[in-house]
Amino acid sequence: MKIKNPFNNEVIGEITLENQEEVFDKVELAVKSKSKLKALSSGDKSKILNEIIEGIHSNFDALVKTIIQESGKPYRYAKGEVNRAIQTFTIASEECKRLPHDLFDIDATEKGRNLMGELQYVPKGVVFGISPFNFPLNLAVHKIAPAIAAGCPLILKPSSKTPLTMVLLSNIIKNTSLPEGGFELVHCSRETGNKLIEHDEIDVLSFTGSPGVGWKMKSMAAKKHTVLELGGNAGAILAKDANLELAIEELFVGGFAYSGQVCIHTQRIYVHASLFEDFKSAYLAKVEGLTIGDPMDEDTEFGVMIDEDNAKRVEEWVDEAISSGATCLIGGKREGALYAPTVLTNVAKGQKVRDEEVFGPVVILESFETLDDAIHEVNDCRWGLQAAIFTDSIQNRNKAFNELKVGALIHNKSTIFRVDDMPYGGVKDSGFGREGVRYAMLDFLDPKLLVRE
Amino acid sequence: MKIKNPFNNEVIGEITLENQEEVFDKVELAVKSKSKLKALSSGDKSKILNEIIEGIHSNFDALVKTIIQESGKPYRYAKGEVNRAIQTFTIASEECKRLPHDLFDIDATEKGRNLMGELQYVPKGVVFGISPFNFPLNLAVHKIAPAIAAGCPLILKPSSKTPLTMVLLSNIIKNTSLPEGGFELVHCSRETGNKLIEHDEIDVLSFTGSPGVGWKMKSMAAKKHTVLELGGNAGAILAKDANLELAIEELFVGGFAYSGQVCIHTQRIYVHASLFEDFKSAYLAKVEGLTIGDPMDEDTEFGVMIDEDNAKRVEEWVDEAISSGATCLIGGKREGALYAPTVLTNVAKGQKVRDEEVFGPVVILESFETLDDAIHEVNDCRWGLQAAIFTDSIQNRNKAFNELKVGALIHNKSTIFRVDDMPYGGVKDSGFGREGVRYAMLDFLDPKLLVRE
Amino acid sequence: MKIKNPFNNEVIGEITLENQEEVFDKVELAVKSKSKLKALSSGDKSKILNEIIEGIHSNFDALVKTIIQESGKPYRYAKGEVNRAIQTFTIASEECKRLPHDLFDIDATEKGRNLMGELQYVPKGVVFGISPFNFPLNLAVHKIAPAIAAGCPLILKPSSKTPLTMVLLSNIIKNTSLPEGGFELVHCSRETGNKLIEHDEIDVLSFTGSPGVGWKMKSMAAKKHTVLELGGNAGAILAKDANLELAIEELFVGGFAYSGQVCIHTQRIYVHASLFEDFKSAYLAKVEGLTIGDPMDEDTEFGVMIDEDNAKRVEEWVDEAISSGATCLIGGKREGALYAPTVLTNVAKGQKVRDEEVFGPVVILESFETLDDAIHEVNDCRWGLQAAIFTDSIQNRNKAFNELKVGALIHNKSTIFRVDDMPYGGVKDSGFGREGVRYAMLDFLDPKLLVRE
Amino acid sequence: MKIKNPFNNEVIGEITLENQEEVFDKVELAVKSKSKLKALSSGDKSKILNEIIEGIHSNFDALVKTIIQESGKPYRYAKGEVNRAIQTFTIASEECKRLPHDLFDIDATEKGRNLMGELQYVPKGVVFGISPFNFPLNLAVHKIAPAIAAGCPLILKPSSKTPLTMVLLSNIIKNTSLPEGGFELVHCSRETGNKLIEHDEIDVLSFTGSPGVGWKMKSMAAKKHTVLELGGNAGAILAKDANLELAIEELFVGGFAYSGQVCIHTQRIYVHASLFEDFKSAYLAKVEGLTIGDPMDEDTEFGVMIDEDNAKRVEEWVDEAISSGATCLIGGKREGALYAPTVLTNVAKGQKVRDEEVFGPVVILESFETLDDAIHEVNDCRWGLQAAIFTDSIQNRNKAFNELKVGALIHNKSTIFRVDDMPYGGVKDSGFGREGVRYAMLDFLDPKLLVRE
Repeated sequence: MKIKNPFNNEVIGEITLENQEEVFDKVELAVKSKSKLKALSSGDKSKILNEIIEGIHSNFDALVKTIIQESGKPYRYAKGEVNRAIQTFTIASEECKRLPHDLFDIDATEKGRNLMGELQYVPKGVVFGISPFNFPLNLAVHKIAPAIAAGCPLILKPSSKTPLTMVLLSNIIKNTSLPEGGFELVHCSRETGNKLIEHDEIDVLSFTGSPGVGWKMKSMAAKKHTVLELGGNAGAILAKDANLELAIEELFVGGFAYSGQVCIHTQRIYVHASLFEDFKSAYLAKVEGLTIGDPMDEDTEFGVMIDEDNAKRVEEWVDEAISSGATCLIGGKREGALYAPTVLTNVAKGQKVRDEEVFGPVVILESFETLDDAIHEVNDCRWGLQAAIFTDSIQNRNKAFNELKVGALIHNKSTIFRVDDMPYGGVKDSGFGREGVRYAMLDFLDPKLLVRE
Repeated sequence: MKIKNPFNNEVIGEITLENQEEVFDKVELAVKSKSKLKALSSGDKSKILNEIIEGIHSNFDALVKTIIQESGKPYRYAKGEVNRAIQTFTIASEECKRLPHDLFDIDATEKGRNLMGELQYVPKGVVFGISPFNFPLNLAVHKIAPAIAAGCPLILKPSSKTPLTMVLLSNIIKNTSLPEGGFELVHCSRETGNKLIEHDEIDVLSFTGSPGVGWKMKSMAAKKHTVLELGGNAGAILAKDANLELAIEELFVGGFAYSGQVCIHTQRIYVHASLFEDFKSAYLAKVEGLTIGDPMDEDTEFGVMIDEDNAKRVEEWVDEAISSGATCLIGGKREGALYAPTVLTNVAKGQKVRDEEVFGPVVILESFETLDDAIHEVNDCRWGLQAAIFTDSIQNRNKAFNELKVGALIHNKSTIFRVDDMPYGGVKDSGFGREGVRYAMLDFLDPKLLVRE
Repeated sequence: MKIKNPFNNEVIGEITLENQEEVFDKVELAVKSKSKLKALSSGDKSKILNEIIEGIHSNFDALVKTIIQESGKPYRYAKGEVNRAIQTFTIASEECKRLPHDLFDIDATEKGRNLMGELQYVPKGVVFGISPFNFPLNLAVHKIAPAIAAGCPLILKPSSKTPLTMVLLSNIIKNTSLPEGGFELVHCSRETGNKLIEHDEIDVLSFTGSPGVGWKMKSMAAKKHTVLELGGNAGAILAKDANLELAIEELFVGGFAYSGQVCIHTQRIYVHASLFEDFKSAYLAKVEGLTIGDPMDEDTEFGVMIDEDNAKRVEEWVDEAISSGATCLIGGKREGALYAPTVLTNVAKGQKVRDEEVFGPVVILESFETLDDAIHEVNDCRWGLQAAIFTDSIQNRNKAFNELKVGALIHNKSTIFRVDDMPYGGVKDSGFGREGVRYAMLDFLDPKLLVRE
Repeated sequence: MKIKNPFNNEVIGEITLENQEEVFDKVELAVKSKSKLKALSSGDKSKILNEIIEGIHSNFDALVKTIIQESGKPYRYAKGEVNRAIQTFTIASEECKRLPHDLFDIDATEKGRNLMGELQYVPKGVVFGISPFNFPLNLAVHKIAPAIAAGCPLILKPSSKTPLTMVLLSNIIKNTSLPEGGFELVHCSRETGNKLIEHDEIDVLSFTGSPGVGWKMKSMAAKKHTVLELGGNAGAILAKDANLELAIEELFVGGFAYSGQVCIHTQRIYVHASLFEDFKSAYLAKVEGLTIGDPMDEDTEFGVMIDEDNAKRVEEWVDEAISSGATCLIGGKREGALYAPTVLTNVAKGQKVRDEEVFGPVVILESFETLDDAIHEVNDCRWGLQAAIFTDSIQNRNKAFNELKVGALIHNKSTIFRVDDMPYGGVKDSGFGREGVRYAMLDFLDPKLLVRE
């Protein structure tokens, strides 16, 4: 399988798909490593994770370049991603020394007199991780780092669009003291992947990707612990008292970073009517000023999408909305895999660009009269990943936090805000469970109780 | 549907099965109650739970009697169950004031400067609970009490064999200040039950029952948070240094309480060879001395099974084992729904009484030479709920805790040990998730993050 | 020693002071009870605490009446205090089942390989509690309830002005299953009290009262764990965007409940200049409307101070302020032990009514221009117990919380806000340590570590 | 002030004592740095701590050499100490990102409806740390690292016997991005030190050293939060079922590492009578084999004490014991500052070598019949720092943990066991409070409550 650079369609590498036997052999290795991983001390695990961090530092430029080449992500964001991967491993290297344990009295009734419960968290077993194209490094690392920290072997299947970054990382990991089988990279067809999901020795499924695939896998994996990180169509609200300048800056990045190919991309912005015109003109001015170009160029702010098919899909959705009455304030054009940064308004419910996850550089701008209306709009879809509110009012923020049906509400920052140690994940169709190192670790651990004196 | 007393086959009550429409109407009520329940303060919830406790006290004798009549459970155990239900509600009444919340810095990187994460746990939505016949009261209460404490409405479907206890409890609950829809009892066919599982407005499925049914339901409920409390075939180990007297007393109760119809019934006892003969003779003497009789009689220690079908199934399994080489040390006889307390030895792997959950008054006694062998035997099945070890050795206990694949290891107590505030649940085929009030509450709550200054 | 009713100077009871020998005998009893208390299960402790709650319910009216008679506290507040004592014991009855324990890995370095730390919290020993006159019941209960929950014997010395309520409570406690010596009431001179502080068998000193006495005791008790709950002169801030109606209502109660004889009495109110006149007129109108009278009367809102000496002291302080330029907006008069509800403005720094704890019905009202100024004013004294801010602005609240040097900032409630499960206590001269059941328990417990495999 | 090498009395450096004014100027700097330190993000603090770690790595050999030269500590232990200092800073660099915060409901009563408590931990202010000679680096680092992590400026006064290591570390710290005043080293007389203790701007006193000095300082510092890490005379118990080989190895190191000049030095060993002779002969053989010599030599296991005065004091104590009936099994001789490794038996209560902290290379060996006796012996002194038990019995260990009056019980390891992330500290005369990074940080932080919606 040839891997192409979406910016210039040059072939940048090749991957050989493995068949079921080859993949199952790797599961075998993983199973064999279980007892070795379980026996690692927290010092051992921390050391392995620090070795990986050193490896990333040594291969920093190669990793950045590979991310740019296979994903078309502009340099600044690719570099940021590698730094975040280092941060994610750092957190894991610290959290592996802080595994949860509980100790509690159970002597409230006569039966429990003199007894305590001691709860330890033990590795669940082999994890099968599936990671997407949009963060070829860090969204895989969000499975790898906690798996090592939890003492679970991990089989990772990266996106077939962006597998090369993982090849680099895999080489780095293989050079550490992680026992063989502790991390295995697989490249395979979806059919073989499905066989893996149903494999008896896989105990946990951790999937980041599209909801259609995710929920189906979860139903296939009924006996396995499953985490799904799926999509969203995040909404941001600017209350009457919002700091306009701050909101514009934040939501501009939220709207167009990596051409909107981010789960928490700011897809919808609801602005209080009194601020709407000011916001709109300033926002469009910034969009107009975007530096579009070669992702390798350090100045580039905006570039191609992952492939032409996706750009065409976005084009279709936008055109559909316009022909149904939406107004295109800027953008709305496609050139190959490049879809221009686009802002729409007056987009009715029912339109895909509003209801579905656009995963492209499209932002919808609407005005509202009451906070109730804005909250209703943000909630009125099948997604629930992140939302943002700009306000200085305690009442507004409390109301929004209470009523918005999302995994996280971001205050005075873009919907796209994520740091690697925060719990991350959605409700409704947006997912099941939470990532963020400590939280992902909990998904890879089983509570085990000792009743004792 | 007529409900019969398994001891004398007298009809003790009648239940009308509801159709899909009736059941869905109750879901509607539950959905409507969501915002009311969410708005309850912890003081309000605690008050409701205390009102239920008062109601149970006022109806104590009726509840005991109904449990005895519909389940055939001897008086002493039925009374214990009502007391445990009071305890379970008490814990919930306290825990609802202690909902988890987290507050943490996320300023490790520049992006998070000045920011904190505030994590609140909010009600997941409507819970559908399915409870079994063997603890008609307390295993339902283990869903009801945490649901109220978490602020989630609950639809409860009790076992069709023992629905009358729940009718009593439902009346008690209806007389409290719990908002309408907060608790709804349904009686329906499995088909209608399945419709409920797939109902869009059901957010959580909490099932206690048989594994075949449970795992299938989980796969039907892929988008819902699911907790399964299934079966086991618990093993107990007596190490060389075990306190024999203590072990005999504990495992005698573990083996024959409520005719073994308990998920953590002591089904298998592995005794160090040096203690085997002593243990065996003392244990059999106690079994011989069991007072068998009318469950209504306060002296009765042992009685009928839930129905003749189940007694026949146990008979079949035991006979099969004997004809395959097992030795019956005592019991092995059936009289209607009464299956005699039975102890077998030399039961080979492959026999249902060893490999499956017997859910009847059958105990297997085997001797072992090394702790490794004993641990291997206990693990060598598809279950993993609870196990017990009798020893004073730290090394033995650590080894057993480390290597036994179970939800809980009980030290110097029977496998049947459970108090209502401990985390309870199994691994492997024994289940998914944990109950025990605080732990069940966590399954009914969603973490929701606010990123803030 | 005769105890008089401050409202009518009638003798309502008599107390015999104990000499050193008698008091030391009680310490002996306490010491003897240590092992018995330590051996109590959480169920036992919870039962004892619930028995006390029942006893309070049975003696509710007597307790209310005694509080009124010996402290002059109006009926509504006395009744509230008894209800709060019930709440305090309830919290203790729940918290004793939730003693902290920690279990953590210590295997980050080679030396700790395979090792864990197990941290249990064990009773520190005998507690000597000293409680003040202003809450004769609940401020003693804030020592008694956590001591029982923690398993520590307690010697309690109530205020010599209000000892009778404690005599009632002591009788209630003596009728429970608390082991003898678990609670001992002493009435003695300060000299004898000091001997107790220096007694070798006293392990913890928990003092609520005046700072002069408190800090001196702490220095005498250098080898004992010491908690001091001392005074304050709480300030409240109304930011420009404050909810005026809410603030007036809250601060009116904060200013005059129990004639200001409360540690967190609202002594100083800083109002943004734009709101000052509106606030002032509405506030004074409310003060004018106060129902002053016999504390036994259910309608009475305001009554005498604890004794004429204190009323005279307040009179002196107020007169001094007025003669130094302060304006008296209302009140400023004394009649025996009754000091009229008084509001001052333009009180300069250096005046006792501003700088010291007035512990009387005096409120200072000042206007401010910037939040910085208001924060500076509140901080500009030697106290740091509680403060309040009325605002809907996140920035304002964060700034105030960050910069005010207090134990607690209360948002949109009076400074006088306290519930019995919150941590309570001050910084600077206001105290050392925190009360509030769980927090007080921690002061009565020692962490004890087991290093183990 | 000239600093001499205790091994050869060569002058290795010079220190100028500062007068009160100079020292108070440093307090001024510390006070000024408070707001800067408070404003640091966890990322900033972690960076500073990592810079210090790098500095230690760069100066590793110099630090080791200086420790050896000024303390006479053998190379292997000096090297170990520098490694532990790195570990201590590492823990702090991680813990500063995990400051505690609490968020909890306070809506159990009507008064608290809709309200939550938000508890943040804020820097207490300026810390004055005093560190001892026996770990010139790491016992100071146990104050420095948590102070930085907590955001508190620290004034450190090292032992006047071993100040040079701190001079090196101070230079390292000055080269990091820690704001000026965040760490100030002072060398001064005890009188000047006492002025510091009483200085109004010092908020916390953290003292490691001798009990006489410590308790007196605490009483001088009544208004300051005070932590005392004082002495001990640790006892180890070998139960009948102890692993003899393991115990000998562990207690040999515990007895003679750094000539016993360690607070948790194994001063007393109680061996079950059945094991006594075997233990004794094996233990003495090991003592005989000790390599005594120049601390700079990598092979040296045992060397001089800190000075001749201390060696003479030990000599006196041992001689006194012998003349009162004790048997000297080995050692008992002095040569300058070198006191020979000494084992005594039959040492009666009342002898200083048994009752007081010997802080020298003396071990007392006694046999016992019952565990009760052994526990009584260990407890029968005024100290309570650490103890050890060697056993495989759960009952023995539970009994010992329950009954020994110590800060920590070490299972199957020497009393000298300490890792830098465990809570460390004693009861009785051994101290007040706990160190170990996270625990020390809590002593440097004040809980501050926000009551909010």
